[in-house]
Amino acid sequence: MSYSPSLYINEARCRGNIARMAQKARSQGLIFRPHFKTHQSLEIGRWFKEEGIDRITVSSLAMAEYFSSEWNDISIAFPLNILEIEAVNRLAARISLNVQIESAEAAVRLKEAITVPLGVFLKIDTGYHRTGLLPTATAEIEAVLDVIQSSRLLGFKGFLTHAGHTYSARGSSAVLEIHEASCRELTGLKQQYEMKFPGIIASAGDTPSCSLAENFYGIDEIRPGNFVFYDLMQLQIGSCNEEHIALSLVCPVVAVHPERNEAVIHGGAVHFSKEGLQHPEYGTLYGQVMESSGSDCENLIPGMFVKSLSQEHGIVQIPASRNGKIRIGELLHIVPVHSCLAVAAFRGSGSVIR
Amino acid sequence: MSYSPSLYINEARCRGNIARMAQKARSQGLIFRPHFKTHQSLEIGRWFKEEGIDRITVSSLAMAEYFSSEWNDISIAFPLNILEIEAVNRLAARISLNVQIESAEAAVRLKEAITVPLGVFLKIDTGYHRTGLLPTATAEIEAVLDVIQSSRLLGFKGFLTHAGHTYSARGSSAVLEIHEASCRELTGLKQQYEMKFPGIIASAGDTPSCSLAENFYGIDEIRPGNFVFYDLMQLQIGSCNEEHIALSLVCPVVAVHPERNEAVIHGGAVHFSKEGLQHPEYGTLYGQVMESSGSDCENLIPGMFVKSLSQEHGIVQIPASRNGKIRIGELLHIVPVHSCLAVAAFRGSGSVIR
Repeated sequence: MSYSPSLYINEARCRGNIARMAQKARSQGLIFRPHFKTHQSLEIGRWFKEEGIDRITVSSLAMAEYFSSEWNDISIAFPLNILEIEAVNRLAARISLNVQIESAEAAVRLKEAITVPLGVFLKIDTGYHRTGLLPTATAEIEAVLDVIQSSRLLGFKGFLTHAGHTYSARGSSAVLEIHEASCRELTGLKQQYEMKFPGIIASAGDTPSCSLAENFYGIDEIRPGNFVFYDLMQLQIGSCNEEHIALSLVCPVVAVHPERNEAVIHGGAVHFSKEGLQHPEYGTLYGQVMESSGSDCENLIPGMFVKSLSQEHGIVQIPASRNGKIRIGELLHIVPVHSCLAVAAFRGSGSVIR
Repeated sequence: MSYSPSLYINEARCRGNIARMAQKARSQGLIFRPHFKTHQSLEIGRWFKEEGIDRITVSSLAMAEYFSSEWNDISIAFPLNILEIEAVNRLAARISLNVQIESAEAAVRLKEAITVPLGVFLKIDTGYHRTGLLPTATAEIEAVLDVIQSSRLLGFKGFLTHAGHTYSARGSSAVLEIHEASCRELTGLKQQYEMKFPGIIASAGDTPSCSLAENFYGIDEIRPGNFVFYDLMQLQIGSCNEEHIALSLVCPVVAVHPERNEAVIHGGAVHFSKEGLQHPEYGTLYGQVMESSGSDCENLIPGMFVKSLSQEHGIVQIPASRNGKIRIGELLHIVPVHSCLAVAAFRGSGSVIR
């Protein structure tokens, strides 16, 4: 047990989340290529292997290199950084590697510099407008495909999207509306080009859609990541219930201020990340405290949330019913707003416990 | 030269910032105990040693342990985490260590568990309302001091504040008004108790106040940290000029979208942190691009800023004059909103270059 800020992973809940998503993929006939940017852990990766998973997604070359010690089929779902091409060549010589591009310029530079066989996905923007070509950008899409086809080392794998606009949706029907539109655009493109490129796939997979959908409209592969832990944002979207949340930050109380209903914890922006969530009742919050009995996490405590963060400090709002009962030296279990960012923060600043 | 997201430290500017603050402290007769949470670097610590600095501030026990390899007089300016008392005892046996408390309960528990001599500061809340006792909380203050005095190992070092509300001020006169009020409250307390505790000091020191003030109203010690690099927030407050900013993130362009005046960089929340800044013209931003010629950083480019961040992606707004001229594979030098948090993020996710 650590007495400094720590990540607590509820293994039973986490394995349950993995098993449920794996089962959904099997029953729908989907390739399940989970995104490992959320946990960034070889050990949790092994829990996926126990569910029969043999290929993964990451969001940087550094992460692909890290996981290549135990995984030999990895997609980097992030626009190729052409400056890293030498390391891409080294890694693709060892494992089955897929990269993502979204312009003919990237395709040309990749074709010029690649020295080993490499899979390539074309990123499609189905409404999130962060990266990718629009499905209607036929000239640009065909320019990219022509370059790939002219290369003896590049293999076109298919179309890939991330419907990240589901993160702004609230409730199942809002998420599923985005999901259906996104899937239909992507599978439409696949149908258009699969005669020319036999075996290509359509790959999608944000956590809200994959958690809530029972129909995938012809999609071949899903790549959710956050579902492994879930968090307050996913709870607000409606992707999960409280009992699916598998990650909390364990933070010591270092000062109490009953006169303003506040406790000070060691647990700041370097642990939670500064991702805030607008709560209809509490305003902006950065985490919410869970009941905790021993090392097991239970339900969220209404009105007990992290209201502000600086580098190492967090300020916790104490509900009236508990004011005066919180003591220094107590450990609070706190669910973060965004588990992916909290885990990434902890890689620099804290320790992980189970 | 790294081709992945990297921190770039402009050594000349950084050394200039250190030299200027050290000179101000000397000329004002102040103890200069810089806060090392900003850079968290032994190497930059040595630049302070070259200026004659021999004592430092940190914000966690882990940081104190890290710096104890080269520094033997360290204050932890963060409420004591009583759960870490065994490690405090070990460290205080090796070096001169000061901790910070703000309640009689903490004082009692510290007195019970301490096994070696330890310096103690009492944290005073001069208006920031994050931590500390109000200067008017005489009964609580005296209860803490009584416990410290009754211990043969605890030594009362004085009163300490952090006027963090200067971070909400804009412009020199607004900052200096907070600074003067804060200093006067703290030195008033010191005068009240220095007969009983000879040799106690008043310790203050946020970066805005220390950068702008020429009068310290009887304060004995300053502890600024951020000034070593500065950042966009400090520039907006008015603590520095553009040519003092010594830190930028070097991020590769991985995609361009001239149709919406945007470039996509590898550089996300795990590099910048998710600290945003409200800009009067640009809205919320997370970084601003600097001109760069070779490895030297120059001025900020108007209208070219990071408008959104996800885990690894950043979206950069491109001003009309440069639209269509940004290419994939280009490296952008980007000043973060908050350099302390960007450096902390990089400890988990990236590399540091000079």
